[in-house]
Amino acid sequence: MSKVEPRTLPGFMELLPNDQIKFNSLVDKIRKSYEKFGFLPLDTPIIEMADVLLAKAGGETEKQIYRFNKGETDLALRFDLTVPLAKYVCEYNNDISFPFKRYQIGKVYRGERPQKGRYREFYQCDIDIIGDGELSIVNDAEMPSVIYTTIKEFGFDNFTIRINNRKLLNGLFAELSLEEQSVEIMRIIDKLEKIGKDNVVKCLQDLNVANEKIEKILNFIEIDGETDEKLQKLENLNFTNELFLQGLSELKEVVKYVRLFGVPDTNFKVDLTIARGLDYYTGTVYETFLNDYRELGSVCSGGRYDNLAEFYTDKKMPGVGVSIGLTRLFSKLSELNILKEKDESISKVLVVSMTDDISRALEVATKIREEEINTDVYLENKKIKAKFKYADKLKIPYVAVIGEEEEKNGTVSLKNMETGEQEEMSIEKMIEVLKNI
Amino acid sequence: MSKVEPRTLPGFMELLPNDQIKFNSLVDKIRKSYEKFGFLPLDTPIIEMADVLLAKAGGETEKQIYRFNKGETDLALRFDLTVPLAKYVCEYNNDISFPFKRYQIGKVYRGERPQKGRYREFYQCDIDIIGDGELSIVNDAEMPSVIYTTIKEFGFDNFTIRINNRKLLNGLFAELSLEEQSVEIMRIIDKLEKIGKDNVVKCLQDLNVANEKIEKILNFIEIDGETDEKLQKLENLNFTNELFLQGLSELKEVVKYVRLFGVPDTNFKVDLTIARGLDYYTGTVYETFLNDYRELGSVCSGGRYDNLAEFYTDKKMPGVGVSIGLTRLFSKLSELNILKEKDESISKVLVVSMTDDISRALEVATKIREEEINTDVYLENKKIKAKFKYADKLKIPYVAVIGEEEEKNGTVSLKNMETGEQEEMSIEKMIEVLKNI
Repeated sequence: MSKVEPRTLPGFMELLPNDQIKFNSLVDKIRKSYEKFGFLPLDTPIIEMADVLLAKAGGETEKQIYRFNKGETDLALRFDLTVPLAKYVCEYNNDISFPFKRYQIGKVYRGERPQKGRYREFYQCDIDIIGDGELSIVNDAEMPSVIYTTIKEFGFDNFTIRINNRKLLNGLFAELSLEEQSVEIMRIIDKLEKIGKDNVVKCLQDLNVANEKIEKILNFIEIDGETDEKLQKLENLNFTNELFLQGLSELKEVVKYVRLFGVPDTNFKVDLTIARGLDYYTGTVYETFLNDYRELGSVCSGGRYDNLAEFYTDKKMPGVGVSIGLTRLFSKLSELNILKEKDESISKVLVVSMTDDISRALEVATKIREEEINTDVYLENKKIKAKFKYADKLKIPYVAVIGEEEEKNGTVSLKNMETGEQEEMSIEKMIEVLKNI
Repeated sequence: MSKVEPRTLPGFMELLPNDQIKFNSLVDKIRKSYEKFGFLPLDTPIIEMADVLLAKAGGETEKQIYRFNKGETDLALRFDLTVPLAKYVCEYNNDISFPFKRYQIGKVYRGERPQKGRYREFYQCDIDIIGDGELSIVNDAEMPSVIYTTIKEFGFDNFTIRINNRKLLNGLFAELSLEEQSVEIMRIIDKLEKIGKDNVVKCLQDLNVANEKIEKILNFIEIDGETDEKLQKLENLNFTNELFLQGLSELKEVVKYVRLFGVPDTNFKVDLTIARGLDYYTGTVYETFLNDYRELGSVCSGGRYDNLAEFYTDKKMPGVGVSIGLTRLFSKLSELNILKEKDESISKVLVVSMTDDISRALEVATKIREEEINTDVYLENKKIKAKFKYADKLKIPYVAVIGEEEEKNGTVSLKNMETGEQEEMSIEKMIEVLKNI
């Protein structure tokens, strides 16, 4: 029979079991953190009607989308979790409670040109809070608290959540009569860290921004100092533009509440250069950096938006949310070898029989499982060496050996795979050891 | 602006949060049970090369598949988790350990005509054990043990795992020189419970099976009694067909080991009418029924197959596995109102402020979260009634009210939403109450 070559598409992550265990551990930690703040789980279809999914899209997104027909129906695979959320809150508007706090952890699809670190299928882990008509600014302060909890849960301490408010930048541009160029200018400012100050000046000059305005922009984004100092300096600018003043007032409130939410000053700061996506966010924006690994880029980003679902409804639904791109993050953390997840097995113990009769091994395994301890039994009739090799490859920390002697004594010989020590003991004693791992 | 109507495709399950919590609880229970037996997690892409996915398919499956091009590439969405497993074990053959025990819980896609209880996107929850060249029959006995643990975890007691071995049926047909009609005959036998004995006889007569052979077939499938009695009666048939004898020997071994794996006789039995999928399984087969709700059909089925990956490789890889179709099962259990999952909220408590200043509420919420207790805070400036209504709709069991008095005293007034009782207490006392839920 002619064979098909088994292969996986480029840009699609597929892990070996030991890595999958680590990946799942991160997912569990994210879920735990999100639930700790009362976010409700959501699971939406991966396939949607193309017109629903693309109501808002355009440009690059639309080109990357997986779109196809099934029968007469024009379908597409979701490319983020925000559009499905917008659809969901409109469709079930009468059945859900506002503010609607939901998390969703799921795969999304973008047919990008495959390159290192870019995935066509990847997990997004989103939280959003959606208001019905209005949404208090305090919600904007909850996001950094969730980010803080999650990244700590990942095992990192040295990270900074950078917070800005786009109204400040837009207000500044208005103050300088540069509204019409605001999108381009923001794009340039966003690159400050990457291209350096001189290049920013050059780019702004190329845009025909007057030198005295460039100076004001630079003075603004270079405002430095601790968080409260920065806020004071922003105050001292004495700008009168209303949008600017609103942004400043919001930012001050967010900083105040972020502290009440328990985020220490060492883990967040005001960063006036953060702009994020250029047409979606309307207020607070966030980026999060592991300070020892800036090359990772932002590991958790998001912001406030005025209107989640304007393409589906006239209802005003403001929201705020952040997202972790877990597939890329996992791949980068693995590559840098800085994943805090240790090699962990699913099973705490592998039960093996030294004789041909597996019966006693099954009885013992069943007893251990009754204590809610994950237990594997080696069922094949192989040499003892193969059995230990199996435990070793799966990183199972203990092997419970049952030979004629142990069967007669009603015991096991428990081998610690790390130290190599082996000790004959009662079933009860073994269960105690395994519970204390 | 013209609006797009937000809508979800027919045949795609989308749940409200309270139901999603219950669904996730079932997923958690399945995962826990599978891991208890040492199965390793796996996550494969939803999109695969069409030729890889369809190497084996044909007929109905191929018609139902979601298949499309992206650029030049012929792609398809997975329609089960077995083909991706076959691909995986071939692709990573040198990196994984055999026997390879894996579980996968994920969505699969079949573009069936939509009808009640049929889904186009649905979760399958699979376990399989794959051998490298050979696989001990004891593995066939582990499956009922996993099924037993999982269904018990779901909260059901009155269920029966029905076990058969297809070699018995195939051996019987050989004994009766009916090999060539075996597929049709099995299909008829499989319907015994549905259409009744008389109709089975009629169908067999229509197939031109001689009456004395029909009688022998009926005698066989009507063998009754307790498990050991049945096995004895099968023995007493004194068939000499080798396949039959092999099937009988396997079935006896499976029964022996199923008991050692801790499955009580009340929850499994030998059922000679179970045939399952007609060309895939080669030995042991399983179906599982909730005895009080036979109308659900089998809630967990599977079997032994000789060769997982013959379309990709010449390597022989026998396996055994079972699967739960969770989307359909959840929908049916909900419909019958027999889900054992109670209404449960994500948050154990909602903190609300009676004053305009939310600060104290945030501090208190942060303290509760530090104790690993899921906590929501109501952040909007709404009337107190709206806040309680929110807790009520989300089924949050406790509301911690903070007014001027409580703020002054450093306390909360904790209201039990079920009993309506409210009591002022210290933060520590409240945490104790919440931990004991």
